[in-house]
Amino acid sequence: MSNTTSTTLPVTQDLAGQHVIIAGGGIGGAAGALSLSLRGARVSLYERHREFREVGAGLQIGPHGWRMLDGWGVLQRIVDAGFLPEHMRFHDAVTGENILTLDFGEEFQEHFGGRYVVIHRSDLLDILIEAACEAGAELHTGVAVEDATTTDDGVDVAIFDRDSEERSTVHGDVLLGFDGIHSVLRPRLVDDDVVPSAYVAYRGTSELAEDPQMSDLKDVVGYIGPHCHFIQYPLRGGELLNQVGVFQSDRYLDGRDAGEIPEDWGNNAELAVAYDHCIDFIRKRTEKLWKDQWWQMSDREPLMKWVDGRVIVLGDAAHPPLQYLASGAVMAMEDAECVARFAVDDAAKKGGAPDWDAVLAEVEAERAPRCARIQTTGRFWGELWHLSGTPRLIRDELFRSADRGGWFRYADWLWGYDPSERAYVGHPEKGKMPAELEGWAYTLVQRSGHDAAPNTAEAAAD
Amino acid sequence: MSNTTSTTLPVTQDLAGQHVIIAGGGIGGAAGALSLSLRGARVSLYERHREFREVGAGLQIGPHGWRMLDGWGVLQRIVDAGFLPEHMRFHDAVTGENILTLDFGEEFQEHFGGRYVVIHRSDLLDILIEAACEAGAELHTGVAVEDATTTDDGVDVAIFDRDSEERSTVHGDVLLGFDGIHSVLRPRLVDDDVVPSAYVAYRGTSELAEDPQMSDLKDVVGYIGPHCHFIQYPLRGGELLNQVGVFQSDRYLDGRDAGEIPEDWGNNAELAVAYDHCIDFIRKRTEKLWKDQWWQMSDREPLMKWVDGRVIVLGDAAHPPLQYLASGAVMAMEDAECVARFAVDDAAKKGGAPDWDAVLAEVEAERAPRCARIQTTGRFWGELWHLSGTPRLIRDELFRSADRGGWFRYADWLWGYDPSERAYVGHPEKGKMPAELEGWAYTLVQRSGHDAAPNTAEAAAD
Repeated sequence: MSNTTSTTLPVTQDLAGQHVIIAGGGIGGAAGALSLSLRGARVSLYERHREFREVGAGLQIGPHGWRMLDGWGVLQRIVDAGFLPEHMRFHDAVTGENILTLDFGEEFQEHFGGRYVVIHRSDLLDILIEAACEAGAELHTGVAVEDATTTDDGVDVAIFDRDSEERSTVHGDVLLGFDGIHSVLRPRLVDDDVVPSAYVAYRGTSELAEDPQMSDLKDVVGYIGPHCHFIQYPLRGGELLNQVGVFQSDRYLDGRDAGEIPEDWGNNAELAVAYDHCIDFIRKRTEKLWKDQWWQMSDREPLMKWVDGRVIVLGDAAHPPLQYLASGAVMAMEDAECVARFAVDDAAKKGGAPDWDAVLAEVEAERAPRCARIQTTGRFWGELWHLSGTPRLIRDELFRSADRGGWFRYADWLWGYDPSERAYVGHPEKGKMPAELEGWAYTLVQRSGHDAAPNTAEAAAD
Repeated sequence: MSNTTSTTLPVTQDLAGQHVIIAGGGIGGAAGALSLSLRGARVSLYERHREFREVGAGLQIGPHGWRMLDGWGVLQRIVDAGFLPEHMRFHDAVTGENILTLDFGEEFQEHFGGRYVVIHRSDLLDILIEAACEAGAELHTGVAVEDATTTDDGVDVAIFDRDSEERSTVHGDVLLGFDGIHSVLRPRLVDDDVVPSAYVAYRGTSELAEDPQMSDLKDVVGYIGPHCHFIQYPLRGGELLNQVGVFQSDRYLDGRDAGEIPEDWGNNAELAVAYDHCIDFIRKRTEKLWKDQWWQMSDREPLMKWVDGRVIVLGDAAHPPLQYLASGAVMAMEDAECVARFAVDDAAKKGGAPDWDAVLAEVEAERAPRCARIQTTGRFWGELWHLSGTPRLIRDELFRSADRGGWFRYADWLWGYDPSERAYVGHPEKGKMPAELEGWAYTLVQRSGHDAAPNTAEAAAD
């Protein structure tokens, strides 16, 4: 990429003189480095791996992310590297019927103030890292953040350089812990474990040009069926096809019931039969998935306390979601923008440097409820996709009904969000599930959902 | 009632000279006697009980029944004796929320060509019996139809007079078997049993004037909840309150699993706790239900062959439904009108007497698919009412969606039906479940539905 693009970044000096340390150089950390350096802060980012990298393949960004990327001045790079789907189509995986289509056209763009874009995870990370560099962030790889101590005037961060094998301390005003689902900073706030969902994901990218069956694909397509789903969309301007197959692992559930969960739950043998109750098309498409790796899907319980002194956990360190609402990366980007925006606002109010303790408290008040809602609603959304029997038929009809009668109402809370509006500050109850879902609890890993409907429609449809 | 009303009945002589014998003097038989005698046929109806009677209390008649009652000239009597609800309201029994309201106002009446009326079962029967008498039908009580033999020119019907204890034979052109769910004629066509649903109904009527909590009731109101529902509506111009409580019996399910079903499943002890997961209002309203009797709800599998020579089974003898679509009585009335109408049409085509073999074949072709669809959809509709956990939440949202976006589409097939249009003749596939429900099977008596959702919303709402 030419240096000329850097001139388009909207850099200010609102946070000049502030030193922000970031643990973790994934999408969240890179977004944090970009958003803070764009405001003139000095940013020091430490990534434990020797290079910046993202595992996985495609990633979806709704208008809630689009608007932020636009504000950061990197939108055109994202669009150039990604793909703008025309629709998101949901199909019943048992019958193939198209039960709901989200049209990403003009009405959508006007309503949500942004578009929907899909992009390769590594492309998104590259763009954010490159822009953060252009904005002046100092990025270090092969350096792990190991500990942090809040001091009178900020935070001392203990780092370990893997090349020199030396430990040292850097001092900053604040530490943003974007260090992922297995964060070393999260245990300062809570002693918890990841929550396995019993679902496993297989992914794969392939050349669209060599795939005549899919060459017309312009949409994000999701086939949702009992205990499984299958996603397809183009990447890189339509060069690549991205596919994701996700299904519930009997091997996990059997192991859990027997008291010993095998390491390889969700293995290739399970994949081979996971779509037997779905239309042939899906069964055959699974052949293109990578077989040498798979992802056992987990999240964590929502966390309402993110701040310990001048340390705050953000991104997956604070709120790793299941993938169903396709908002994990955007949530981390929202965190990044929220910290920068609130710090700028506080600095303006104070007429000088921000009061970081107040800023972090406000970020937590805004972001924790928002992310809790995405996490819990995401679990529900997954359960909705994976229903069988009568509930599946009702779900299909509800989707058809939304298709006829309008679906914006269901997405406004998610895609219409802007952290600068402080919707949750002072109204943390907005982070709860919608009233109609209160009392619902996470049943994805309940075996019952698997056995509930002996007279399932899919059996008859085979 | 004065004799002057009889002058309003629209009597013709289209079927003069035809002798129609009817077994059973319930609502179906009475409707058959009326519809056939209105066309000038000689009708001999035999009811085994010593008086015409209906068990139960209130009964609902949708516009599909309204239009027939209008055609038979008895509509004003029905309206005078019944109640015209303004709406049908569905509430979630766990939260009390009103999730769907069917407005029976002008738009409804214009769309369906009729109104919605509720009436005491015994009032409906009285009106039909009285009108059939006025139209010239010969009605006999205390006389049971025991057997029938098709002859060269009609049917010999063996009857037993309970008072004289004498057996005799009457000859007619055709025998209509409206002899109920325990029909003695149905075994000519199929060897089957009733299918218990594991649900039991308690009913009760009480004075609305002495019930200040309900005195404003103008609607049919249904509270639908996990494994139970509760219905309320006024009767007799608003003098009476009709209430029905229906719930799944653990006693039945436990007995079935243990291999011996107790006779008293659904007993008062079960009623006492059946609504513990519902709002207090419902729990308290159950006090007004009659405790000395309850109805174990059953239906039968759909039957596609109704005709044996000059004998045809109709009404509950042919298609006893579960009560969820509130169309059992109307289905029997549709049968009655269909026989009369098709006979008149055939007589007109032949320019003389109808060919009863052809008429019965056409009635079967029209009615069997129609009734099969009502029976199977009724089972599904009941399952929809009784869902728990996540499926209940989806159901609620689907009902809200129908409330916002229009619900006529879901009722057109049921309430827009007119037997004279012969919609199913030659298109028996219309009797199948709608495409989206194909493959669905009856799970009401599956225990799974009871145990499926350990994390049910109702538990949290208590």
